[in-house]
Amino acid sequence: MKIAILGYGVVGSGVAEVLHVNRTQITKRTKQEIEVKYILDTRQFPGDPLEGLMVSDFGVIEGDSEVKLVVEAIGGDTIAYEFVKRAIMAGKSVCTPNKALVAAHGPELIALAREKGVCFLFEASVGGGIPLIRPFADAMVAVDEVQSIAGILNGTSNYILTQMSTNGKSYAEALKRAQELGYAEQDPTADVSSQDACRKLSIMLSLVTGKQADYQKIKTEGIEKISAQDFAFANALGFTLKQVVSGKICGSSGVEAIAAPFLVPLSHPLATVNDVYNGFWATGKTTGNIMFYGSGAGKLPTASAVVSNIADAVCFADSLSYTWTSEEVNILPWENYSYRKMIRVSYEDKSVLEGVDGVVTIGQYPNCAAWVVPAETEAETVERVARIGEMAGVRVLQVLRVYE
Amino acid sequence: MKIAILGYGVVGSGVAEVLHVNRTQITKRTKQEIEVKYILDTRQFPGDPLEGLMVSDFGVIEGDSEVKLVVEAIGGDTIAYEFVKRAIMAGKSVCTPNKALVAAHGPELIALAREKGVCFLFEASVGGGIPLIRPFADAMVAVDEVQSIAGILNGTSNYILTQMSTNGKSYAEALKRAQELGYAEQDPTADVSSQDACRKLSIMLSLVTGKQADYQKIKTEGIEKISAQDFAFANALGFTLKQVVSGKICGSSGVEAIAAPFLVPLSHPLATVNDVYNGFWATGKTTGNIMFYGSGAGKLPTASAVVSNIADAVCFADSLSYTWTSEEVNILPWENYSYRKMIRVSYEDKSVLEGVDGVVTIGQYPNCAAWVVPAETEAETVERVARIGEMAGVRVLQVLRVYE
Repeated sequence: MKIAILGYGVVGSGVAEVLHVNRTQITKRTKQEIEVKYILDTRQFPGDPLEGLMVSDFGVIEGDSEVKLVVEAIGGDTIAYEFVKRAIMAGKSVCTPNKALVAAHGPELIALAREKGVCFLFEASVGGGIPLIRPFADAMVAVDEVQSIAGILNGTSNYILTQMSTNGKSYAEALKRAQELGYAEQDPTADVSSQDACRKLSIMLSLVTGKQADYQKIKTEGIEKISAQDFAFANALGFTLKQVVSGKICGSSGVEAIAAPFLVPLSHPLATVNDVYNGFWATGKTTGNIMFYGSGAGKLPTASAVVSNIADAVCFADSLSYTWTSEEVNILPWENYSYRKMIRVSYEDKSVLEGVDGVVTIGQYPNCAAWVVPAETEAETVERVARIGEMAGVRVLQVLRVYE
Repeated sequence: MKIAILGYGVVGSGVAEVLHVNRTQITKRTKQEIEVKYILDTRQFPGDPLEGLMVSDFGVIEGDSEVKLVVEAIGGDTIAYEFVKRAIMAGKSVCTPNKALVAAHGPELIALAREKGVCFLFEASVGGGIPLIRPFADAMVAVDEVQSIAGILNGTSNYILTQMSTNGKSYAEALKRAQELGYAEQDPTADVSSQDACRKLSIMLSLVTGKQADYQKIKTEGIEKISAQDFAFANALGFTLKQVVSGKICGSSGVEAIAAPFLVPLSHPLATVNDVYNGFWATGKTTGNIMFYGSGAGKLPTASAVVSNIADAVCFADSLSYTWTSEEVNILPWENYSYRKMIRVSYEDKSVLEGVDGVVTIGQYPNCAAWVVPAETEAETVERVARIGEMAGVRVLQVLRVYE
């Protein structure tokens, strides 16, 4: 089978590499050779072993009926969207790791692929190299009632927070280190603001509900506000801090959805998802809790997930179950979500906190304290913070949700 | 589509229940109703809502061409083996959670199903409710070179060890508690001796290598020898203790395979697999590390996995990739496996241990110490233990491998 790769960047070249190094296993599975016929890129790659496959005109790929499948690795949702649509219209299956494309145009592309009898697969758009979307869709969404999902789905943020947690770095130091290592971009906003993770949450919620979960309506809060002190107090209370996405299915009324920093109990499996790893957690009525864990980013892990989609497209044709419509699922107002919260304060005289349950202090941070309050809504927290602010000499420095 | 369930015990009745409570989702996926036509059991179930489906003669099911699929939930590898074989011969697909059957007769039943053009699926035979075998086979074995696998695959042992770890219970106390709760059988040998986990390791190694990994040739050691002191010292060294299965693919020479208690670093995701949960870890050349986590046992989780297989059988017919032949993979001699080890000793005079690296002591256990030695083979450990035994007043009390 002949395929084309659009975009010869990190993932595009990774797909070519994985197809090459793992060709024995892949051919055993697909029962036919997967051959890259074209690579589309506007740049030149002199000396590259695949130089001869380079084309700069998408029309060549679109018009070649031998090409049965296209890997979209351009990114973004402008040119990528146009080319993917044209490829499907031309009767070609598409595999893509592009979460922006799927979050923005999923229902349209899914419906179009169905109409044309081809596959539109996007395994690597969430969780990088983790076998996630397909197992979750086939083994849980298809046979169980999913009650809630959660995850650590942004490798960059998780690397930064892991550095802060294990090496006591400040946010700024950890970000700088991540940029030096190429884990964070020069403008890290999409990652640290939780916008990237939010798009991935929208994809997973769409899979679960069968309806479009509009990422623009999902509450996001960034990790920039997390400090070394937050980590110290969270730890003293039995937690670590992670950028978490959380979705809860609330019957027919809609879904709760939020992407933000959360305290995670140290005993919870998500707490050991460190560095650039990702973890996805789900609870089903009969399946109970499951977690998928693996490399959330990286050239070869992401490319491996794309290649697993290529094999799926060859072996299962259009019998896959990933599907949702353009009808929107109701995203409930985030102000009403009820979570336990860590309150961190400074004080002048500790005796004013005597009536407060579970207060911890840390020698390293004099005149500071933190505790966890029972689950409450945003309005209740605002009231609580006002009450605490009225205590003599007490200032509320931080409020962070507890994942559970 | 009409199906039959063989055995109306915990899993068999769970399958009927999951098919009932999740029927909306399942029908959406399979595009046809799944109807239980017969339940085979030698016992009577007066008053059960499904009483009318009970039959005691397998011949009725075998001879009914309307029955396209059989769920085998009898257990063991005698009657279950006979009925599964007869069902496949009669052109029916089979879904089973029966690891004993798969470990003993996998290649024969896989080949027979292929010949007859039906499915033989066994998702729940490893990892209970975790979507594991299919995702691992499709997304990793099929497209990558698996280098190693590991897992915590026995819920009973894991419950016992978690009780010892978190509540400081002795092995005997923890086993008694597990028996009271129904997590351990009156004769817990199969679970605590690592024999059960060993069969699951053999299934996963067979999937990876495409050849039969004979469970009888895999080294097993039980968890009965683990004490509260082992936990205390492992913890002081930065580890917990788990019943681990470990398989390493050593090129064409064969595989390393062992099921035994291991120290697991507290920072490793497998360390948070507690209670009756299971975790499966794998490393692929391009995918990197992945972990699947979920309920290792329990009526509804296990039944959910069986039901996901039923949906697979309906949707994908015989295009699934789980397959291995009866040719045996060479299981390398366990004496040559190289692992770091924790040595725990008693001493009369601590000064004799002065030259030893990384020794820890614990106030609660006077005259006791432990440390971790670099990776070495069994013969090297025997030598080392002999050398330590020659130190004045020192007695070696325990030697345990470190998972890595």
